[in-house]
Amino acid sequence: MKTVTRSISLNSDLGEGFGAYAIADDETLLGLVSDANVACGFHGGDPRIMRRTCEIAAARGLGVGAHFGFDDIRGFGRRHLEVPRDELRDDIVYQIGGLQAVAKAAGAQVRYVKAHGALYHSALKYPDYAAAMLDAIVECAPDLPMLCQPGTTLARDAEARGMPLLREGFIDRTYQDDGLLTPRSQPGALVTDPELAGSRALRMALEGTVETVSGKVIPMEVDSLCIHSDSPGAVEMARSARAALEGGGVAVTSMV
Amino acid sequence: MKTVTRSISLNSDLGEGFGAYAIADDETLLGLVSDANVACGFHGGDPRIMRRTCEIAAARGLGVGAHFGFDDIRGFGRRHLEVPRDELRDDIVYQIGGLQAVAKAAGAQVRYVKAHGALYHSALKYPDYAAAMLDAIVECAPDLPMLCQPGTTLARDAEARGMPLLREGFIDRTYQDDGLLTPRSQPGALVTDPELAGSRALRMALEGTVETVSGKVIPMEVDSLCIHSDSPGAVEMARSARAALEGGGVAVTSMV
Amino acid sequence: MKTVTRSISLNSDLGEGFGAYAIADDETLLGLVSDANVACGFHGGDPRIMRRTCEIAAARGLGVGAHFGFDDIRGFGRRHLEVPRDELRDDIVYQIGGLQAVAKAAGAQVRYVKAHGALYHSALKYPDYAAAMLDAIVECAPDLPMLCQPGTTLARDAEARGMPLLREGFIDRTYQDDGLLTPRSQPGALVTDPELAGSRALRMALEGTVETVSGKVIPMEVDSLCIHSDSPGAVEMARSARAALEGGGVAVTSMV
Amino acid sequence: MKTVTRSISLNSDLGEGFGAYAIADDETLLGLVSDANVACGFHGGDPRIMRRTCEIAAARGLGVGAHFGFDDIRGFGRRHLEVPRDELRDDIVYQIGGLQAVAKAAGAQVRYVKAHGALYHSALKYPDYAAAMLDAIVECAPDLPMLCQPGTTLARDAEARGMPLLREGFIDRTYQDDGLLTPRSQPGALVTDPELAGSRALRMALEGTVETVSGKVIPMEVDSLCIHSDSPGAVEMARSARAALEGGGVAVTSMV
Repeated sequence: MKTVTRSISLNSDLGEGFGAYAIADDETLLGLVSDANVACGFHGGDPRIMRRTCEIAAARGLGVGAHFGFDDIRGFGRRHLEVPRDELRDDIVYQIGGLQAVAKAAGAQVRYVKAHGALYHSALKYPDYAAAMLDAIVECAPDLPMLCQPGTTLARDAEARGMPLLREGFIDRTYQDDGLLTPRSQPGALVTDPELAGSRALRMALEGTVETVSGKVIPMEVDSLCIHSDSPGAVEMARSARAALEGGGVAVTSMV
Repeated sequence: MKTVTRSISLNSDLGEGFGAYAIADDETLLGLVSDANVACGFHGGDPRIMRRTCEIAAARGLGVGAHFGFDDIRGFGRRHLEVPRDELRDDIVYQIGGLQAVAKAAGAQVRYVKAHGALYHSALKYPDYAAAMLDAIVECAPDLPMLCQPGTTLARDAEARGMPLLREGFIDRTYQDDGLLTPRSQPGALVTDPELAGSRALRMALEGTVETVSGKVIPMEVDSLCIHSDSPGAVEMARSARAALEGGGVAVTSMV
Repeated sequence: MKTVTRSISLNSDLGEGFGAYAIADDETLLGLVSDANVACGFHGGDPRIMRRTCEIAAARGLGVGAHFGFDDIRGFGRRHLEVPRDELRDDIVYQIGGLQAVAKAAGAQVRYVKAHGALYHSALKYPDYAAAMLDAIVECAPDLPMLCQPGTTLARDAEARGMPLLREGFIDRTYQDDGLLTPRSQPGALVTDPELAGSRALRMALEGTVETVSGKVIPMEVDSLCIHSDSPGAVEMARSARAALEGGGVAVTSMV
Repeated sequence: MKTVTRSISLNSDLGEGFGAYAIADDETLLGLVSDANVACGFHGGDPRIMRRTCEIAAARGLGVGAHFGFDDIRGFGRRHLEVPRDELRDDIVYQIGGLQAVAKAAGAQVRYVKAHGALYHSALKYPDYAAAMLDAIVECAPDLPMLCQPGTTLARDAEARGMPLLREGFIDRTYQDDGLLTPRSQPGALVTDPELAGSRALRMALEGTVETVSGKVIPMEVDSLCIHSDSPGAVEMARSARAALEGGGVAVTSMV
């Protein structure tokens, strides 16, 4: 049993529009989360959008993370890209550095990093991709913790290098008994009921547990709860989670 | 008359390839110049190319500058782009920040900034573009000097803000009596004879003067001599300039 | 006074998303218009989106037009781009040809062409841009009419070449006494009230007139009424226009 | 033994530059080959470059093929891209259609198609990619033969659909005993000696055979001989092949 939690972070991927395109209701979500994973321009985001997102985050006292991805606007960073290890590393360094400068100009500061979409999944599957990612972080932002699902090979690789980690739980996804997420390709992978999302959020925060698809209750101690900004009902789930947490005596505060 | 000069910088725009594409003989030029203006990914360059360019620059003790441009790979940053002031400012901040991180990972450090192609020309024509550029530099790299042609409105704007400047002369372009370059659209705008390029380089370095297209000799005291890397004969002119300078007792050393 | 009109076309710019990004409620609008101006991949749209848009248009018997623009996804084709005349011409030829092939594969056929955003405006301002556009159309699709606002220089240039034209009116924009649109930068440029949009649509269809911002009634005989798909309230205005037209005895049918 | 050949085609991938970037000596190669595989803008090429390449091809009576690839300028179409089958199909249709229109405007006509780089290799490995490619060709250009290496799964898939094929041999690559190319990752994969390239070209043309890396002579009857335009020494090998063929009484003529 977890010790009593008085606060937890809510994070969401934000600033993922591009030029005239938007993909989520950033404005509303920036009023609900405590930490904004800001896209760095390669899978979504452009410097103007990054800046505005960081300015709002700074004005509201939210944490800002560098949310880097594959160089693939058309695919929104959601498809695996074949990239040599050194090229991937350099792409990530560039993205983090670009956002750091923009955030600073916006009066904010990048406090953590988080991989996006297919890059995250490829890092779980291919050691070279994980190594490229961790190399990049160590090279350009060694003090920044990586927000990451606990129990994954990526988390273990980072721990083995002594890198700081922040543990992430998902309130809009279901878990398997092994503590990993139910793949999106399987039925029941998504949580879409805001009320359920809220009660799951509170349980992870208060008890450090989650109920899996088989009905088993497993430990899931996390530092932050993620809501995917582009799922249908993202705003409703964020609202419900925030209400459930605050109603249950858990403050929603930045993890950094 | 200038005081005796014992050293001057030679700079060139480098790392301007993209993926499999090259546009200049970077490898040879990196052996001839003292300072590399490294493209930041928007008009040319990608993070892998930036990294390799910075690594070579670091290994050879060359100065590294952030050479930012319009977001226009297809146009190579050579055509005016209609960009709102705040968007242009943020694009420049992002580019400088991205290169700073990549340079650091390569064991180098960005020591100065320089605008590329159409962005430079647009900043001379449109006050909003100049303001966006200077705002960006002040926001993210206030200590870095801007390499710039003396006597231009951009140089004066920067001086008026108290920003540090480095003065640049061109050995492959001719000058008009007003100290500005002969527009490329006019005949006689280019210097293509390596020997002439060399003697002009030495004269600017030793005497701080240049002979204009009308035959007049005008003052042109500069900190660095630029060779456009993608002009035909760039390597030959760089070689000739270096030989002429060293033969004339002027060491070629980084300006930063 | 116009002869009694029994039918008119409603057109809208559709298929302007990119990858995961959407910018308008295409699905609903494809149920309201009679003609779809399908983006060709340069300012918006990608081949998958083009295909789906053409498939729906074919299934519903809508007309399909090639809606080409500047090569500028980030700017959504809304900013002037400096392009040499021959490059612009070739870009337009490529876009029309690409959509023609995709439309054919989708069981549709491109029946007209229409310039998008800044390209349209630049063609009104710069003779070279108009010439590039008309050259492109003549080269690759000489039989396709160009949908265009009557009374503009572009319409006159096309007429002077003997090119077929379709005249377009705007139900979500106000007109000046000279028959041109009130620039967006001026107050009162937009019509946002659906009911007003509907009555204006019916008047243009039935009477061939429009009331200008000064209150004057001027002739405005058109073949098609345009609704900007990405204006706020686009769906409501399209619905209101369709209802007003049909209620007034005017069928909404494709112009081609 | 092959019947006496009096003519054969020489093909090369051309027009693969992008904006200001070039990647091969197109001008010289267009004077040596009989057929130009023209890049369609997704892995290289832009409409202006396509147009110029087609104009030269038309002026010299060369055959023009649509050389389509993955949507990946930065990777030059050389890395596998994860694309759903229908998206890949639509991308190929768009590329072929775009080039067809540009070629027509240039006074040329697309006469065959050929897959580029990683797309070609992925079509050999993944049935979905091959199917997407063949679907695209059937949909938009059913009469155009596909230039392809004989004996591959892709060639067999196309034959099974009754699609017209043109068989391609490589003079700058070595063959294995199974008639497939030695992978580039293995030593001895490349032929770099122009004289050897020439004698291999003549042998394939006259005898319809090739000597494999093991020294075995195997049948290799082809309609066209390919020279990779971006290999070092491409021009020399093309020149040598052309001289060897013509010296051996084999005319170099377009295959279409």
